[in-house]
Amino acid sequence: MKKIFIKDLLDSKTLFQNVEILGWIKNKRSHGLITFWDVVDSTGEIQVLLSNDSLGKEYCKIKDISVETAVKVIGDQQYFNNNKQNIEVVARIVEVLGEYKLNVTPQPRSDFPIFKQKYTDHVLRNKSLYLRNPMQAAVLSFKSKFVFELHKYFQENKYVLIEPPVMTEMLLYDDRTAFSFEYEGNTVWLSQCCTFQLEAAISAFEKVYSITPSFRSEHSRSDRHLNEYSHLKIEIAWACMNDLSKLSEDVLFSLAKRMAIVGERELTFLNVKLNPDDYKPPFMKISYDEAVKILNKKEPFQYGNSMGKKRLQELTKEFGNKHIWIEYPPRSAEGFPFSICPSNNNLVMAADLIAPFGFGEIGGVAEKICSKEELLERMAEKGRTTAKDMERYKSYIELREAGIPPHGGIGMEVDRIARHLLKLPHVKDVLPYPRLFGRRWNP
Amino acid sequence: MKKIFIKDLLDSKTLFQNVEILGWIKNKRSHGLITFWDVVDSTGEIQVLLSNDSLGKEYCKIKDISVETAVKVIGDQQYFNNNKQNIEVVARIVEVLGEYKLNVTPQPRSDFPIFKQKYTDHVLRNKSLYLRNPMQAAVLSFKSKFVFELHKYFQENKYVLIEPPVMTEMLLYDDRTAFSFEYEGNTVWLSQCCTFQLEAAISAFEKVYSITPSFRSEHSRSDRHLNEYSHLKIEIAWACMNDLSKLSEDVLFSLAKRMAIVGERELTFLNVKLNPDDYKPPFMKISYDEAVKILNKKEPFQYGNSMGKKRLQELTKEFGNKHIWIEYPPRSAEGFPFSICPSNNNLVMAADLIAPFGFGEIGGVAEKICSKEELLERMAEKGRTTAKDMERYKSYIELREAGIPPHGGIGMEVDRIARHLLKLPHVKDVLPYPRLFGRRWNP
Repeated sequence: MKKIFIKDLLDSKTLFQNVEILGWIKNKRSHGLITFWDVVDSTGEIQVLLSNDSLGKEYCKIKDISVETAVKVIGDQQYFNNNKQNIEVVARIVEVLGEYKLNVTPQPRSDFPIFKQKYTDHVLRNKSLYLRNPMQAAVLSFKSKFVFELHKYFQENKYVLIEPPVMTEMLLYDDRTAFSFEYEGNTVWLSQCCTFQLEAAISAFEKVYSITPSFRSEHSRSDRHLNEYSHLKIEIAWACMNDLSKLSEDVLFSLAKRMAIVGERELTFLNVKLNPDDYKPPFMKISYDEAVKILNKKEPFQYGNSMGKKRLQELTKEFGNKHIWIEYPPRSAEGFPFSICPSNNNLVMAADLIAPFGFGEIGGVAEKICSKEELLERMAEKGRTTAKDMERYKSYIELREAGIPPHGGIGMEVDRIARHLLKLPHVKDVLPYPRLFGRRWNP
Repeated sequence: MKKIFIKDLLDSKTLFQNVEILGWIKNKRSHGLITFWDVVDSTGEIQVLLSNDSLGKEYCKIKDISVETAVKVIGDQQYFNNNKQNIEVVARIVEVLGEYKLNVTPQPRSDFPIFKQKYTDHVLRNKSLYLRNPMQAAVLSFKSKFVFELHKYFQENKYVLIEPPVMTEMLLYDDRTAFSFEYEGNTVWLSQCCTFQLEAAISAFEKVYSITPSFRSEHSRSDRHLNEYSHLKIEIAWACMNDLSKLSEDVLFSLAKRMAIVGERELTFLNVKLNPDDYKPPFMKISYDEAVKILNKKEPFQYGNSMGKKRLQELTKEFGNKHIWIEYPPRSAEGFPFSICPSNNNLVMAADLIAPFGFGEIGGVAEKICSKEELLERMAEKGRTTAKDMERYKSYIELREAGIPPHGGIGMEVDRIARHLLKLPHVKDVLPYPRLFGRRWNP
């Protein structure tokens, strides 16, 4: 196993002889009988001096090795330019461990605006190659820590992780927005939401969470839609809407604070200022009806429709570019598990969390139905009344007679929040292989 | 949000008045004008005294409330049986928050051997209900911590989490063992293994990992096969087989040590003795050929076949019921990304990790192919030679010309290892909704 990383060499107080570097050539500069390589690994970058003097006959071959090739270099450290801040390695032995033979531009590790729209097609087509781009790598490294910090937050707060199945017979939304296939004579779907499994678990654990893939077969090309995304779901016994929105705010603010610390290196490299106070609760709350009124002042908005990027940006601007909650949406627009609002039967006990600056919806909360009658009424509204439906949702319906207390859930979109913290142009940027409508699948 | 949990009441040094309990009735005992409830929440169990004296007219109704109902109880704490170890709550107000109307036996929270085979069908059919069974809940709580400790191990050791897609065009094994569906005119599959995505990421991060769902459409009813399972995948640049097996051993031993501590409550409840020394490296290594020779002494074994539970148990018994590695399997039996053994072209550079006592295979390691020619040769062996195949695996083939260094991977089966640590009869027991061949899908 590799023991010495480039950062170790750069950080060491003394000069070592016979060091072994395993890494990739990022740049090279040839000056006749001397060549310089910038060699990188996952921890840093170091200059390697290759010369006819130290390498002899081998030098001629070595100087032609192309950028991006994986190499082993054995040599001795020395200072250069008479400055003890500058450490280079004089190569004595060079071995090619993985040759680079492709001709793809921009060069994968080069400094170009990889997230700009003009590169989207090219980068997606060659995603395996561009994972090593330093900006893409910094984003993915940040994301790795972000997902871990989410787990940590919930584990520290005594939530139990539930691992729901991906293949399911229970859908939250329309069949037409689901991926389906046949297995053992049944149609099964890729999960749209694990609320069905998590709600059952609250009778054991009271507070549960999941970070799991969720699927939507939607033909959207917006900057925040993916066909496959990472879904943070939380379900809590005895919780009401206010509890849920407060907790969501705490998740967001806590994660912003944690990431400003553990993600400092990546944030600095990406030149992103993550100010946790931008995520500080409490957030303003407006009703869906108020939101529609505000929007209608500028341009008519069709009541009941979902609000796109532009309209949501208009709204948050009205509230000083802060996060806002849009509460009590119409029941016609929302999933059937959401409780009907007692004071207005046309609305449900739910709220969407909207980020400012066009980042749009990043999460939502809802009280869930406890009564079997109310559930069946809501299912009927969504056209779920067949014998097959009753069979599919049997366990979920039955739960309403199984001692389920008042409870509610939170859904937060992990990829969207990471994108929001990093202020990236598109949610796809935080995933190694984003699944986007209308793009080729491979890989 | 619920603030006071039953454990808080049991642990408090003083007796509180006006405490509010939110929980479920686990048992009840009626003695005319006095009824006792054992009320549970996720943290503990407390006795509640209901009497005509303190509840007045309400008492008659309240005493008939059925077990498993979710209730709110407000009352005062007192000692009973003249013993300060015994705290009960005298109820003054009782509110039903979720009635239990089902008639399912065994009663979900009752003490019965839930993992015994005779209950399998019944429990799977009513899984939503049996999540609250104390034994099942203890297992899922242990599992929750186990998955988190896995993440922690890799994050602490500077691995980067890669989130691979579930929907993919690249399969490790046979199409017939994959779930597939059509999308945008292409056949896509549910991922069998994320090696294709992780290998690409090592050029950025050197050490990467993933804990992600993996799918096999296999018609197996063994005690360690699931159609959908949690797959720990690790991929490391510059690593050879010895590095990989050593790391796998360290993962297993470290997790056994961590879980003996963080899972102590669950282990005690389940009466499972988890002795980390049972997982202590190094493990013995034998070659596949040697393994076949040993097996053949008892009963003929078909060379090249995979070894089932019984045969693997025979083998580990030969080595004192310790974990063993079976190295260098025949290339015909293994996935095409595995490197061909330089000293014997019929074998590959891979090894399976076998647990003793019939727990069977729990993981494996393999060096991966770096040369394009070798990869195409291995793909051809597996019948992957069409133009469509070349298109599907394009990025993976191209990686061989993209400066990829020697590298290798580890696959460990999260569910199987958790089952092994808990010594459970079946891998299904560690999941809330296991996907098993030949069982109904719902939910």
